[in-house]
Formats: sequence, C-alpha cells, structure tokens
Amino acid sequence: MAGLGTAGVLASGAVGGVVGRTTAARPPSPVVSSSTARESPTPVEFTGTHQAGIVTPAQDRLHFVAFDVVTDSREALVAMLASWTAAARRLTAGEIVGPDDSGEAQGLPPSGLTLTVGFGPTLFMTGDGVDRFELAARRPKSLVELPVFPGDALDPSISGGDLCVQACANDPQVAVHAVRSLVRLGVGVVRVRWTQLGFGRTSSTSTAQATPRNLLGFKDGTANLKAENGSALEQFVWVGEDDVAWLAGGSYLVTRRIRMLIEDWDQVPAPHQEAVIGRTKTAGAPLGQRKEFDPTDFGAVRGDGPAIPHNSHVFLSHPTNSGTAMLRRGYSFVDGTDDSGRLDAGLFFIAYQRNPDTGFVQVQRNLAADALNRFIQHRSSAVFACPPGARDADDWWGRTLFEA
Amino acid sequence: MAGLGTAGVLASGAVGGVVGRTTAARPPSPVVSSSTARESPTPVEFTGTHQAGIVTPAQDRLHFVAFDVVTDSREALVAMLASWTAAARRLTAGEIVGPDDSGEAQGLPPSGLTLTVGFGPTLFMTGDGVDRFELAARRPKSLVELPVFPGDALDPSISGGDLCVQACANDPQVAVHAVRSLVRLGVGVVRVRWTQLGFGRTSSTSTAQATPRNLLGFKDGTANLKAENGSALEQFVWVGEDDVAWLAGGSYLVTRRIRMLIEDWDQVPAPHQEAVIGRTKTAGAPLGQRKEFDPTDFGAVRGDGPAIPHNSHVFLSHPTNSGTAMLRRGYSFVDGTDDSGRLDAGLFFIAYQRNPDTGFVQVQRNLAADALNRFIQHRSSAVFACPPGARDADDWWGRTLFEA
Repeated sequence: MAGLGTAGVLASGAVGGVVGRTTAARPPSPVVSSSTARESPTPVEFTGTHQAGIVTPAQDRLHFVAFDVVTDSREALVAMLASWTAAARRLTAGEIVGPDDSGEAQGLPPSGLTLTVGFGPTLFMTGDGVDRFELAARRPKSLVELPVFPGDALDPSISGGDLCVQACANDPQVAVHAVRSLVRLGVGVVRVRWTQLGFGRTSSTSTAQATPRNLLGFKDGTANLKAENGSALEQFVWVGEDDVAWLAGGSYLVTRRIRMLIEDWDQVPAPHQEAVIGRTKTAGAPLGQRKEFDPTDFGAVRGDGPAIPHNSHVFLSHPTNSGTAMLRRGYSFVDGTDDSGRLDAGLFFIAYQRNPDTGFVQVQRNLAADALNRFIQHRSSAVFACPPGARDADDWWGRTLFEA
Repeated sequence: MAGLGTAGVLASGAVGGVVGRTTAARPPSPVVSSSTARESPTPVEFTGTHQAGIVTPAQDRLHFVAFDVVTDSREALVAMLASWTAAARRLTAGEIVGPDDSGEAQGLPPSGLTLTVGFGPTLFMTGDGVDRFELAARRPKSLVELPVFPGDALDPSISGGDLCVQACANDPQVAVHAVRSLVRLGVGVVRVRWTQLGFGRTSSTSTAQATPRNLLGFKDGTANLKAENGSALEQFVWVGEDDVAWLAGGSYLVTRRIRMLIEDWDQVPAPHQEAVIGRTKTAGAPLGQRKEFDPTDFGAVRGDGPAIPHNSHVFLSHPTNSGTAMLRRGYSFVDGTDDSGRLDAGLFFIAYQRNPDTGFVQVQRNLAADALNRFIQHRSSAVFACPPGARDADDWWGRTLFEA
C-alpha cells in the first residue's frame, strides 16, 4: 500500500478538525419480524477469508453501482482499487473517508454497512477484444456475459459494467454516502455506468432473520441458502480450487433488474397468485402445507393435480427440481412510474454462486415455463467475479488478480 | 359514507382468511441522533383538526405521488376520495386495506405511516379553463401555479397535479404499500402523474428530533418551525379565517424537486461550503458561533466582513431576513445517475404554509442572490391546498370542499 499514490490521503483520516463518525461498538439489535427499520449493530468486520456483504445477514437497504473504467492505465486502476479498499475499511467501521468527507453520514452509526467489489467480463477484455489491463489471460472461463433467456427485455445502458460495488446498510444514507465516496475517489479512473437503489431486502441470508415480503406480497427466499449452511456454502457459493486461483474464496455475482408488472399482478385473485408462486400468500407455506418452513412436498395432491403446480415458481426454482442452489440477497425497488403511469417497480435480484453456469443460468433455464413470467420483465443483467476478502490490514481489493 | 359505492369494500376489512397487520400499540421509540432506521412507534392518529403528516414528527422515508384526475364525474371523484379516506384510516392504523390487499406490508407494524392529501389548482380549473367538477368558484385565490423563479429548470411532466398524496413512514415498504393501495382504489378516476421517493428526512419537525444532514453534508432545518411552536404554527402553517372557509385548519403544500450538483459541490473545500451555507459543517453552528442552536447573529463580524455572508443560504432564508417562515419536511433522494454518469440526487423540498405567497414564494424570491444557487437546480414544482383533518370516523378527505 505504501507505494500507492492515493493512500496518503486516506491515511490522514480524521484530522483537520473534522469529527469522526461514531465507532463505538453497539450491542447487536434484536431480530425483528420484518424488513422494518432497526437500530444498527456493531460494524461488520471488513477483513476476512470472504468479502463481507455476501453471507452477511442481509441489511435493509441497497445502493448498487456498476462502473466503466475510463483509463487505460493499469497502474491508475490498481491505485484506485487500493484507495477504495482503504476507504471501504474506514466507511464500514463508521469512520469518515478523510478530511474532505462529503459529510452526510457524520453522526450516523456504521449501520451494518458492507461494501463488496466485483470485476465484470469487460475488465478482462472489452467487447471488441482489447486487453486493456493485461488481464485477458486471467479471466475465469465462467466470467462471460450471461446467455439470452426467453422473455429478456434488457436495456444495455443499465446492464454490464467493468467493476461493481454493492453497498448494503440498514440506513440508506450510509449506503449512499459510501458509494458517493468511492465515486469521488475514482474520478479519472472510473465512470458510473448505472446504479440501483433498493429500499427493502427481499431475502434472508441468516436463519436468525425473518423472511421478508417482496412486492408481489409474498414471502421471498424461505428456502434460500443461509450463512449457517456451512457445507452448502462451500458447494454452491464460494469459488473452489477448480477455478482460477486468484478467485478462490470469492464468488460470482449475478444481478438482474426484474420489473414486476404490479398492476397486472394486482388484478389476480390471491388463490391464483398462490398457484403461480407455489406458496400461500399469508403464511408463505408450500401449497398443501400450513407453515412457512413446512417441507415442500412436490408429491402432495390437491383435487386431480399436484398441490404445487408444475409451472409454479417454487416448483421450477426449487433445488430439488433445478438441481442447484444459490445465495440470493435481492432488494425491492420503486423507481417512480413509466410514461403510462404504471409503477416502475420490482426486484433487483442479486445472487452469489460458485459458478454462474451451474447457478443462475441453470435455474433461469429451468424457469422458462414459469407461470410468473407473465408478470415480470428482466430489464438489466450483469455478472461479476468477486475476489476473496482482504486477508489483513494491508491487503487490497484485487491484489490476487493484479499481482501475477 | 354509507351512500358511497366503494365504502362497502373497505368496510369488509380483514375477512376472508387474510390475517390483519400488527395493530397492537408499541411504546414510542427513543429519539435517535440521526435519520437512522428505528423501531416504529404507535400508530399516528388519523382523526384530528389538522391532517397528520404536517406537524407530525418527520418520519424517515417518503413516497410522494401526484395524480391527474381522468374522469369527468364529480360523483366518481367524491366516491374515490371517500374510499381513500377509509383506506388511509386502516393503513395508518397498520391494518390491511381489504381482502385483496396486495400483501407486501403484512406483518409490518404501522411504522408511523401518515397519508396527507392535497388538491392542486388544476382540480378547480384546467389549464385551458374547464371547470370539470364545479369547483372553480371554490378555488382559494392563493392556489395558483407558482411564479417562475430565476434559474428554474422545471420539467412539466414531473410538476403539478390535480391531487397529491404524501406518504411518510419509518419503513419504506409501508409507504410504498400505502401509495400502491390508493392507486389501486383510484383506477378509472385518477392516473399517476409523477412520484418521488425520498430515503432520508432532511428536516426535523419536532424539538424532540435531532437535526439530520442533507446530501450537501450539512445539518438542515435547524431553525425550522416545529410542532411545539404553537402560535407560530397558527401564524405560518395553518390556514385561517382570512381564506376560503373549506380550507380552514388546512395548509398549503409546496413541493420542489431540487437536484444538487453533487460533483461540483464535492470540489468545494469545506470552509467555502460553510460560507455558502452560513453554518459550520460539522456542528451546524451559525458562522461566528460554536453550537448548532446558538443564536444566529447576523451582526457578528469576521475579518473585514460579516461572519455570515449576506449571500449565504442561511442569511437569505432566515425568518429575520425573509420576513416569514414555513414548516419544511423534505427528503433526500437519489434517482440513479444521468446520461453523463453524474448523480441525479438532491432534496425533495416539501413545505407547508398558511399562504404560498407569504411562504415559499416570498422566501424563494429572497433567495435570488443565494450563493447556493450555483449548486442546485429546481426540476419540479407543485402546489396543493391540503384540507383540514377528518373530524370523526365518518368524515372524508375533501368533504368541506365538495359539500357546498
């Protein structure tokens, strides 16, 4: 770090009369039965084998940003990644970035902030085949743009990206401040390509969290992989030794901005909605069962057919039938209304997996006949390789990639 | 109410196997020193002399929606307003709207939800002079589109509106659910014209609340009118007997979507930012003083000039110099980025006043020379007359206006 030009600015920290943000440890808050606002727990540890923000219990709010790299200088890119790492370490601890901190998070606690970085396929080789940063040989084979799926309605201007940062926190102002701070540090090196705010988590990533509801009104992520599923995480989330070495302990991130056709969905009576999803609306129980965590019984019969229809979302996406699993940590969004006054709202889908081919791609192919497809539209798509965590206080995002 | 067509649907309430939302009273939460997420207090009372959501301690999140009325039927409009009132009463109590509730707020507490309705100038007479609802004679003289101010960069498609609803809550999902529910009840009568989400309050409206920071990084609203300022509220917020009778106890609402040129602002060193605002960045003290609530001393001198520059925002907007006051309850917003990758972020300004001419218009005229103008752009503007509160359980939004 010492040799990197920007480190000095960050290391100067809270001098110059600027008061640091709260850093005193607070006791963890009790788990609440919803995505409701809550007091913020102790800072989330930044250093670790894996990056924080993946199996970390999902925070309530999201600010996601994808960047294009606008420099051709590998050195400048590396310096920025190092400065980002130092800043991320301070921000997640609830501290200001430096003397010229923009200030809007002063006085706010760490709020569970995590910052998670990922590298897109175009960082390794541009669409027209340019190896800007001598990284082409280090591209993981699985890090390619996702295939086209039936029904995709993607907008390229809000898809893809050379880099991404996922900021999650229990206070949106803290997430926004973190993204703004990284954007400022990246001036001349990166440019914001697209961003997405999410106001409410739609998945639990810990068994200690209650299952939230998405904007379809249904509990989402009941059968999600959770932080406590140790061996399943190794199998389905963390990149192993069968992939490129620099990515070991990392994970692949897939994002999809899934617009929900809210007005159409709201016309559908609840029993039909339940048949589309495969769960009851109020309890979130698999159809044919009574409680949310009752086992999903695909053999159960109702009338002259299966209790859980074979074109329901639960049937087609369930590990039993898709043959795989991934860790979801998506967020609800409302981005106003479109030109016809319809809500531009839905789910910003985020999933982490050991390999996109056997994760999102496999599940999404299995969803081709999903009854839910009538009510949703995929508008944005991106895939990133998220490196392992910072091993110590001197480590920086991407070191394993850039240090040959 | 009994004669209104839609009331029956709403009155049926939580029947049909749908479990109601949490309605048990909770103790009020302690005030936190920030806009941080917090546990939700007891439901805010819906019935009252004034509508809730004006002097109610500002909640953390906003979903604001402006509507165009698409029917010519006064009867349909009145029926919708009555059904909205009944729904608002249920929603703010933390209950579901009815058996076909969309569901995403099930299990969530009331979260301090308030719903506040307003009537725009075009409800009384369209831009081309049509008196659709026999209301022209009842239009308050002060309810006219705001004048054009120097520097305005308004987008008509996100300005104005025949009706508005301001939904504020401490959980964004609760605010979103409320707006969605009213939109559903309004199908065929109104159409969404524009909406704005706000993620963090930028004003306190109670002396029990700490002053939050806006996206300029400064504490905002230190000298705001507060719920506890009894006689000042009568003077500056509530419509009195000098206006049309149906609006007595109501208030005028002005909204302005003020984009902040964040990247430009972030280039300005803190001492210069402080001179633009007129307060210190960290403490929020008036320049020349030490603490946030120290008196603003416009006679204080620093060097060879006034401590608080005469073109600073505080100098020009302060009641002492603008000659008036209003109650602000704005919210920070981030709506992604523009085509050049710059943050589309700022302040969704909301102010309530007894009269727009002697409220927002007077202050805004005084701000013509504001040093802050270089860093902001007004992109949307609207004005509404907000009727008094529902006097009892049978009252409905607009009764005093529509019942001649």
